[in-house]
Amino acid sequence: MTDHSGEIGSVLVVGSGLIGTSVALALRGHGVDVHLTDRDPAVASRAAQLGAGTTDPPDQQVDLAVVAVSPSATAETVAGLIAGNVAATVVDTAATKADVLRDVRAAVGDAPHFVGTHPMAGRERSGPSAARADLFVGRPWVIAESESDPLSMQRAHRLVELCGGVAVVMAAAAHDAAVALVSHVPQVAASLVAARLAEGDDAALGLAGQGLRDVTRVAASDPDLWVDVLVANAEPVARLLAELRQDVDDVIAALYDVGEDQDWGRTSLREVLVRGNAGRARLPGKHGGRPTPYAVVPVVLADRPGELARLFADAGRAGVNVEDVRIEHSPGQPVGLVEVSVAPRSRERLVSALADLGWVVHD
Amino acid sequence: MTDHSGEIGSVLVVGSGLIGTSVALALRGHGVDVHLTDRDPAVASRAAQLGAGTTDPPDQQVDLAVVAVSPSATAETVAGLIAGNVAATVVDTAATKADVLRDVRAAVGDAPHFVGTHPMAGRERSGPSAARADLFVGRPWVIAESESDPLSMQRAHRLVELCGGVAVVMAAAAHDAAVALVSHVPQVAASLVAARLAEGDDAALGLAGQGLRDVTRVAASDPDLWVDVLVANAEPVARLLAELRQDVDDVIAALYDVGEDQDWGRTSLREVLVRGNAGRARLPGKHGGRPTPYAVVPVVLADRPGELARLFADAGRAGVNVEDVRIEHSPGQPVGLVEVSVAPRSRERLVSALADLGWVVHD
Repeated sequence: MTDHSGEIGSVLVVGSGLIGTSVALALRGHGVDVHLTDRDPAVASRAAQLGAGTTDPPDQQVDLAVVAVSPSATAETVAGLIAGNVAATVVDTAATKADVLRDVRAAVGDAPHFVGTHPMAGRERSGPSAARADLFVGRPWVIAESESDPLSMQRAHRLVELCGGVAVVMAAAAHDAAVALVSHVPQVAASLVAARLAEGDDAALGLAGQGLRDVTRVAASDPDLWVDVLVANAEPVARLLAELRQDVDDVIAALYDVGEDQDWGRTSLREVLVRGNAGRARLPGKHGGRPTPYAVVPVVLADRPGELARLFADAGRAGVNVEDVRIEHSPGQPVGLVEVSVAPRSRERLVSALADLGWVVHD
Repeated sequence: MTDHSGEIGSVLVVGSGLIGTSVALALRGHGVDVHLTDRDPAVASRAAQLGAGTTDPPDQQVDLAVVAVSPSATAETVAGLIAGNVAATVVDTAATKADVLRDVRAAVGDAPHFVGTHPMAGRERSGPSAARADLFVGRPWVIAESESDPLSMQRAHRLVELCGGVAVVMAAAAHDAAVALVSHVPQVAASLVAARLAEGDDAALGLAGQGLRDVTRVAASDPDLWVDVLVANAEPVARLLAELRQDVDDVIAALYDVGEDQDWGRTSLREVLVRGNAGRARLPGKHGGRPTPYAVVPVVLADRPGELARLFADAGRAGVNVEDVRIEHSPGQPVGLVEVSVAPRSRERLVSALADLGWVVHD
């Protein structure tokens, strides 16, 4: 029987890829009854083997259907589930919201049992084997404002909660503009920078450093998925790209000008770079909050098994929780450098504890 | 007395910022006699306090002068050192090479004792306190082909060797085109993406994830330094930016087209994303070689002091050297996920050792 308290006892996951399987794993961890489907039955079976649920179809209406198929197939899948009365509530997880709401309404009219959602989590890898029960932990999960009935909204919130996400309620259009800004345009920019490298010569690429690797990391993402996303969010993305193109024009003009009027060109270039500083400074820290002012402690260590263990053991004994760590490692060289991030209040304690124990700390 | 074997016994470092002080620290580690100067004497003193050398001026000609001042002051500083016969050999470290060679020649004519060089290393932080003796370890250090005398070329190579860098000999123009591709254009793109964020609303920025943080990391860099670099390399950068602008135009056109002719728009978008995949795949691994296919082992761990220590201790006992590590950490949540990178041959050993010891490994 469908639960009418907003609690979720049974779920149908439609699309057993990275997102669907991660949702399923998280729900299984809370004892929810999960049924898995996929257009490719072998994919659903793989998810089931990972402990994400069963591929047996539900024998009655489930409390919730979670649609995690490709963006272009989302609206029609949602419409089919609503028409079939398969679930008391249907949510989708596509990266854009206005188009899904519009297309679902076009197909089935008012859809009070449908809630558009978007978990802000992903990886460059895809498929059920990349799934993780904790994929959504601490990450924003947008719930689109809509005419859904209260019980369906409640189930959507409960889904986010069970997955460990942070529910963020936004209008669909505001969501789409936001992801164009923080996700879709950065993806295009990364792909365009990386596209320049395709024709570069080996000697040039041999000079690449960490900066270029960071800028282009997301350029490794799945083109087919991203075509879907960009097409679904075409207008907000195009609008921001037009602004970006204007800036590119200005930079090019400034560069051609510097031979003639150094001052104007330099001022113009500086203005763009300063705006970049300002935008970057507004980014929240890695946990979705305000930028976290971790203190970074650089420590020199030998390149052999056990050195990191010894370092972290010493940090643990000093009672310091390591928040993040970054290794700059140079094989063939006797030493590497580890940057250990800790809460600012723990910094001094860590530095003096490590120094006392003979570690070389770049303070 | 100046050494005529190409060996470097005494060095004058001109400009005691990040690069100059890092060079000085590396050379001091090999017992080289290092003299530090800076247009701001307090900066040179700070470098000296860090053990980078002495602020006393040399009492005779040094073997080598290393110029590490701002890009726009480089050529005139080199010219002054040559005119003053202060060093047997002068090298610079500026991010562009053709303009420095041209300006030095314009100032002093043929300059057989000058070698243009560019260490491909840096950080977002600057100043002597950000310096590290190992900043150049394993990193490419370009030596520009020029009419320098053999002994000066030899000293430049020896400098790179003492700093642990990897000497890469290139024509100045080829170097400038290469850094436009792998460093200057990515910097501009990162700044332009970040510039969009300056006006974004808080709710939108709250949805930002790791992808955006990676794309915009270098946008935090010093605008004044980068104006100098971009002006010095204006033509190669402008040429590549013009290509990038063409791609931006194509993407915008494709996005506006998708309403009318889905097929053309989708094909055009996909082509750009696929080129991005191809370019990204050509990037060398973090150590400057071919992409290193590290195996990634994701391990779940509790969010408390000592867990990382225990993990790395267990990895060390299994005889596995951890090459890199990335923490996805969610405070307030009971668990985090650590991605441990190891040599592919060590992967299976690590996974089974950790699983035997009770770690939850996402395999």
